[in-house]
Amino acid sequence: MNVHDSKQLKTVIKELSDFESLQKMHYECIEADAMPSLSALEEIVQLCRALLFPGFFGYDAVNKQNIAYHMGICSEKLYQLLSKQIHSENRDEIALTFIQQLPAIRAMLAEDVIAAYNGDPAAESYAEVIACYPGIRAISSYRIAHALLKLGVPTLPRMITELAHSETGIDIHPGAEIGRSFSIDHGTGVVIGATAILGNNVKLYQGVTLGAKSFPLDEEGNPIKGVPRHPILEDNVIVYSNATILGRVTIGKDSTIGGNIWVTQDVAAGSRLIQAKQGSKSSKEV
Amino acid sequence: MNVHDSKQLKTVIKELSDFESLQKMHYECIEADAMPSLSALEEIVQLCRALLFPGFFGYDAVNKQNIAYHMGICSEKLYQLLSKQIHSENRDEIALTFIQQLPAIRAMLAEDVIAAYNGDPAAESYAEVIACYPGIRAISSYRIAHALLKLGVPTLPRMITELAHSETGIDIHPGAEIGRSFSIDHGTGVVIGATAILGNNVKLYQGVTLGAKSFPLDEEGNPIKGVPRHPILEDNVIVYSNATILGRVTIGKDSTIGGNIWVTQDVAAGSRLIQAKQGSKSSKEV
Amino acid sequence: MNVHDSKQLKTVIKELSDFESLQKMHYECIEADAMPSLSALEEIVQLCRALLFPGFFGYDAVNKQNIAYHMGICSEKLYQLLSKQIHSENRDEIALTFIQQLPAIRAMLAEDVIAAYNGDPAAESYAEVIACYPGIRAISSYRIAHALLKLGVPTLPRMITELAHSETGIDIHPGAEIGRSFSIDHGTGVVIGATAILGNNVKLYQGVTLGAKSFPLDEEGNPIKGVPRHPILEDNVIVYSNATILGRVTIGKDSTIGGNIWVTQDVAAGSRLIQAKQGSKSSKEV
Amino acid sequence: MNVHDSKQLKTVIKELSDFESLQKMHYECIEADAMPSLSALEEIVQLCRALLFPGFFGYDAVNKQNIAYHMGICSEKLYQLLSKQIHSENRDEIALTFIQQLPAIRAMLAEDVIAAYNGDPAAESYAEVIACYPGIRAISSYRIAHALLKLGVPTLPRMITELAHSETGIDIHPGAEIGRSFSIDHGTGVVIGATAILGNNVKLYQGVTLGAKSFPLDEEGNPIKGVPRHPILEDNVIVYSNATILGRVTIGKDSTIGGNIWVTQDVAAGSRLIQAKQGSKSSKEV
Amino acid sequence: MNVHDSKQLKTVIKELSDFESLQKMHYECIEADAMPSLSALEEIVQLCRALLFPGFFGYDAVNKQNIAYHMGICSEKLYQLLSKQIHSENRDEIALTFIQQLPAIRAMLAEDVIAAYNGDPAAESYAEVIACYPGIRAISSYRIAHALLKLGVPTLPRMITELAHSETGIDIHPGAEIGRSFSIDHGTGVVIGATAILGNNVKLYQGVTLGAKSFPLDEEGNPIKGVPRHPILEDNVIVYSNATILGRVTIGKDSTIGGNIWVTQDVAAGSRLIQAKQGSKSSKEV
Amino acid sequence: MNVHDSKQLKTVIKELSDFESLQKMHYECIEADAMPSLSALEEIVQLCRALLFPGFFGYDAVNKQNIAYHMGICSEKLYQLLSKQIHSENRDEIALTFIQQLPAIRAMLAEDVIAAYNGDPAAESYAEVIACYPGIRAISSYRIAHALLKLGVPTLPRMITELAHSETGIDIHPGAEIGRSFSIDHGTGVVIGATAILGNNVKLYQGVTLGAKSFPLDEEGNPIKGVPRHPILEDNVIVYSNATILGRVTIGKDSTIGGNIWVTQDVAAGSRLIQAKQGSKSSKEV
Repeated sequence: MNVHDSKQLKTVIKELSDFESLQKMHYECIEADAMPSLSALEEIVQLCRALLFPGFFGYDAVNKQNIAYHMGICSEKLYQLLSKQIHSENRDEIALTFIQQLPAIRAMLAEDVIAAYNGDPAAESYAEVIACYPGIRAISSYRIAHALLKLGVPTLPRMITELAHSETGIDIHPGAEIGRSFSIDHGTGVVIGATAILGNNVKLYQGVTLGAKSFPLDEEGNPIKGVPRHPILEDNVIVYSNATILGRVTIGKDSTIGGNIWVTQDVAAGSRLIQAKQGSKSSKEV
Repeated sequence: MNVHDSKQLKTVIKELSDFESLQKMHYECIEADAMPSLSALEEIVQLCRALLFPGFFGYDAVNKQNIAYHMGICSEKLYQLLSKQIHSENRDEIALTFIQQLPAIRAMLAEDVIAAYNGDPAAESYAEVIACYPGIRAISSYRIAHALLKLGVPTLPRMITELAHSETGIDIHPGAEIGRSFSIDHGTGVVIGATAILGNNVKLYQGVTLGAKSFPLDEEGNPIKGVPRHPILEDNVIVYSNATILGRVTIGKDSTIGGNIWVTQDVAAGSRLIQAKQGSKSSKEV
Repeated sequence: MNVHDSKQLKTVIKELSDFESLQKMHYECIEADAMPSLSALEEIVQLCRALLFPGFFGYDAVNKQNIAYHMGICSEKLYQLLSKQIHSENRDEIALTFIQQLPAIRAMLAEDVIAAYNGDPAAESYAEVIACYPGIRAISSYRIAHALLKLGVPTLPRMITELAHSETGIDIHPGAEIGRSFSIDHGTGVVIGATAILGNNVKLYQGVTLGAKSFPLDEEGNPIKGVPRHPILEDNVIVYSNATILGRVTIGKDSTIGGNIWVTQDVAAGSRLIQAKQGSKSSKEV
Repeated sequence: MNVHDSKQLKTVIKELSDFESLQKMHYECIEADAMPSLSALEEIVQLCRALLFPGFFGYDAVNKQNIAYHMGICSEKLYQLLSKQIHSENRDEIALTFIQQLPAIRAMLAEDVIAAYNGDPAAESYAEVIACYPGIRAISSYRIAHALLKLGVPTLPRMITELAHSETGIDIHPGAEIGRSFSIDHGTGVVIGATAILGNNVKLYQGVTLGAKSFPLDEEGNPIKGVPRHPILEDNVIVYSNATILGRVTIGKDSTIGGNIWVTQDVAAGSRLIQAKQGSKSSKEV
Repeated sequence: MNVHDSKQLKTVIKELSDFESLQKMHYECIEADAMPSLSALEEIVQLCRALLFPGFFGYDAVNKQNIAYHMGICSEKLYQLLSKQIHSENRDEIALTFIQQLPAIRAMLAEDVIAAYNGDPAAESYAEVIACYPGIRAISSYRIAHALLKLGVPTLPRMITELAHSETGIDIHPGAEIGRSFSIDHGTGVVIGATAILGNNVKLYQGVTLGAKSFPLDEEGNPIKGVPRHPILEDNVIVYSNATILGRVTIGKDSTIGGNIWVTQDVAAGSRLIQAKQGSKSSKEV
Repeated sequence: MNVHDSKQLKTVIKELSDFESLQKMHYECIEADAMPSLSALEEIVQLCRALLFPGFFGYDAVNKQNIAYHMGICSEKLYQLLSKQIHSENRDEIALTFIQQLPAIRAMLAEDVIAAYNGDPAAESYAEVIACYPGIRAISSYRIAHALLKLGVPTLPRMITELAHSETGIDIHPGAEIGRSFSIDHGTGVVIGATAILGNNVKLYQGVTLGAKSFPLDEEGNPIKGVPRHPILEDNVIVYSNATILGRVTIGKDSTIGGNIWVTQDVAAGSRLIQAKQGSKSSKEV
């Protein structure tokens, strides 16, 4: 770098360092805790996976003689990493309670794996589903994040589901309530909003949106936070690829929603919705 | 960690280590080989890319004098990594045969690159297509995985395409049969099912699904595996963004399928399908 | 490796090293510069993020006393990395000019963050938006890449937006012109073409395509590059999930485009378009 | 691992885990702080070197424009790492005070560099001395460790000089008192004991020991700690290679001690000691 | 690299690749196993240290609740790494037997630590001795290597002691027989030959050589391997710094050998040897 | 860090950043090249070792089929790294010439290996000597550094031998002239000065110094650089452990110098020198 460049750079640096110019955008470390560390979060998710699916994630030669050592090491590391990243007074207690919930989460995920296997003729084994299916990865991260959110942990749950979003293209808000035997096939583009409620045996294909149609504004024109605004899907609902369901509507149980359609009203139980007929084949427009 | 926490943790660890509770979910290393290593797979894909597109991937200063050294090192590493990850008796032979197919795969990919370049006014050079286009990455991984699947390699091919799925948002099952000069533009959300058949010069845009509509169940209610259930796209078919084509239907050659539509029936050669007209503009619903 | 394998491998290596067989596909390092390094680009993006959002990216304990040191180190590293990756005669000048634009880019991104926060009831703080929202990551990379493209930097801008595409599923061409207070919610599958023009306060949901319908070919049948072929969205336009807008059409200001629809014609200002009614509920087809 | 091995391993593990068998050997983390982290210590030494010799260690392109950024970042990291590794109540204060002494330590080291340069005809520049001479590395670590010891920091100083011992073969106890313009040439095997006192302009060659001859035992036969038991070398003393000086003796100023000799008594100022004549040349013994 | 250089390089590469020119120097992988991996050996030593001194090496927060997990993981990793590096038919059995000896080795090392602590007034705690003293590191590596050598493991033991030699400057041949409560102070330059025998409570200072004086040649003039040729030190012998003891001589019990002397004959029990008087102080020679 | 600490730190940083205070100690990057990179040098040494001893260093499964690929890659990397680190106008030419000398250096090292094997009854194979003996490592680095020095490369050669010094405790100045079949046993503490000259078949043991006795000063009292001041050892000389030979003396061919002695005068060919008899055994002094 020549001297001229070096001086001009110094001017920009001064500008970029002007604390006032950051407004309230930057995270004020003096007044608040630092943001949770992204690399720590990635390790937390890896440890959870190793505890939930031993042999698939983490150490790959787990057997009856050594499983206790591996579960022991992973639990302990998880406890330490997690309690360090939780910004709360009773961080230790929360981390411990979360780990105590892992056996129950493992049981739920086992049902999710079975649902994915049964619902996909291309799946050749449970092992393939656990190792390869992005749906299972996203659902695992959701179930972990949801448990943390219920324990009152701020920020972290959302960061965990966004990590899974980046990895799988599946965006499940940790606030959503999702029942047992849930499966997502392929999954890229799936969005499940913060107040969505899904029953048991629900199945979604890629590109499905369970979103908000509109939301009430407060007196200053800002959206009112926390209002229920996402769909309710009852038991056994299937939604095909790229369908969009918006607003606090209820899709009745045993219904099937066809692909590429736009639903903003309640759908009775047992319904089957499909897209209107396509345009005339002689069109020159495309 | 205080002593109290430590003891409670010990109880959970015992629970998580209960071998019976794992049911058939965990990979039984005693009876079977370990799962293929994910990091080894990533290196395998990197080596294939370095062999298929020298100068773009791997060492970046390949020239006439040194190319043989680089191809030599990469081939040898690939041979060793691959034969180690293939769980089969004749693993060495399979790895060698696969590497012997790489020149032919390179020739096919060159045609794919040209197709992408010709089909996109924004593409400024072959180099840009190879270096930047997620479509080419996903197609490369598919062609690699498809070759391995044909050689009878289990699990690995699916893991390779899922790596590409995570990287590009494009999910091509290694079982699909895809012709020459194939291109995918942008690509996020594309799904191509296990029994799909695509001719030459097919072009897909982002969000296109070539999926299964439904599938026959066996007497116990489980899906029958291996039945042809995905679309056939003949030569020169173009499918626009977010279109969904489901079931064992045939899209005749030279057809164009418009975006955001839902196709579950055969389409005659030379057809152009577009979405029905949109709703009235005065709607207050949105 | 046994001797037999080793000899056969040698034959393939020779074939793979045949320089002529590479056609014009490989990057000719003798005649041209090496491709920009992917890992260098990733570091460049990290440094930009650290400069634009101090406290969130890079060092996490920035305060009034030390911010100048951190901005200084990051600026200097960025200058060096960037000027090394730009293949141009006046690379130093370009790198410096780019860094001088960072304060203005930071100001624009602050407005984007506020727009995302105000537009999403699930957002709990500016911090959450900056740390978690893939939309902000993709828009940051776009604004960086767009600035570099305007300075005449080749290849790099496209590689930067493709990195963001892989991370977020959002594909914004660096050539697009995008106004202030821009937001993308969820975002997976969004595509914004090279000649698209977006006004201020535009909001897009996941799966939205702003693409090209068709493009003129030259006398040899190749697409003519550089022709305006993507939509214009005027101020305050909202486009819901999975909508596809194709061609050089104009969506007039204050319009709302509903999800899952296909738009290939101009839309008057203040319009609201939604999908046609869905098919009869008694259908057995799905 | 077969099942038989696995079970036998389990038995050894039990034995190795028997807490009582550890006696007082293991570091009791419950009652005490963890040992300082070795990798943290290595980083601490690297940061000190970067602060003391900018341009040689740490960032290699320091100039007038950017030096403040680099000193700033390094000081801050050093403060944080150091205060974390010091096991003391007022760790923050100690870390700060230590950093405040660095300018003075830098001034002393500059004199040591000049002494080494002037004392070695093979040295071509100050730069070569700083970059290559193990003597300077060992003396730097000693001066750092000595400063920490004076501030009451436990364990750490000794670990720092042992790191230098492993790197250079020079073992200087942090408790030794060493004057200005000190130099060690080559240095492998040099030992300077905890209570040694060296004046200014002392020069040692490789293999020199300044050790303890014997030490008083207490009533239980254990050595009494803290008694002065190592030599005093006054100003301008030179000691040649492999000489051994033992006990609380004084080597008077301006003396020269020849190589390979064994000194256990005081030596008057200005003396020159050399080894007794070697044995007859006709000896067959060797 | 320009084309000219590139061609000349090609010529040298050909010369360097000439297999015949390697004579018997290179390790013939076709006929023999590959050399043990240096990085694997380093990990093996780290794991042994973690098992022998829990809390000091490896995980730093071992307590009663978790020690079994850590010993379990380390033992298992050690078993796998070790059995992979041992080039022998019954590699698994050897690795297991070695691990079964670790509790006994730990007990011996505890006595070595106590000996070092009692013998050095500068040592402030057992913890300091374990964490900082190069003597303990070298003795640990020796005891590990010696056990492996006794089990018939080739090459590895020597590589392990050479790693310690590089780290500490102390060179103990794994073939030496060394009793209990052994200590080495400072240690740089200590050499203990392959057939040396040391009793209990032996103490050596830095620079001490226990070497071979000369060795019988066979008819072709090559040294006869395996002949006892290094000293025997009986119980309670102390050897001061830089003393050289050569040949199959016996230093009788309770003897003290002063520094910088050269011993090639037996020394009776209870002796005290010191260097001859130094030369006249007026010498001008130095 | 609290605000108070932060402010005090800022004051020290200012002091440490005062450019004038650095005197001429710091490396002035504005006026000169940056110092050679230590990590680059380590890689350069690794590459040389891989080229000189294929199968031992670098890739461990070299065979007749693949050796050319490995020599090719290593040579090319070496060329690039080396020409980047050499601060000279004709850096490319120097790097190439150096690589062209590697076959000759390999031939010399092969003789050194044989000499070490023949001279040590404990050596079991050439392989053990190459893999384990620090002497061979130090001699390899010396021969590399010496060749670079002869080609006029500044600074680098000295840094290379200092890396070996740190690793092995053997300090050979790259300026020394050393003949064929050279061996060093154990080696810790060996020092060979810049103007030393060694014939063929010379053998040194640990702790041997070939140093300077004194050196002429110029009018300002500074040592005159470049004057021959280190010993000449003629063919077949053996020097035992811890012997010190100082000044421009000549040790005649076939001589043996015993351990722990101090030689400052010429020694006739065929001589055998040993230490004077040790002191009376009844001494109470030690």
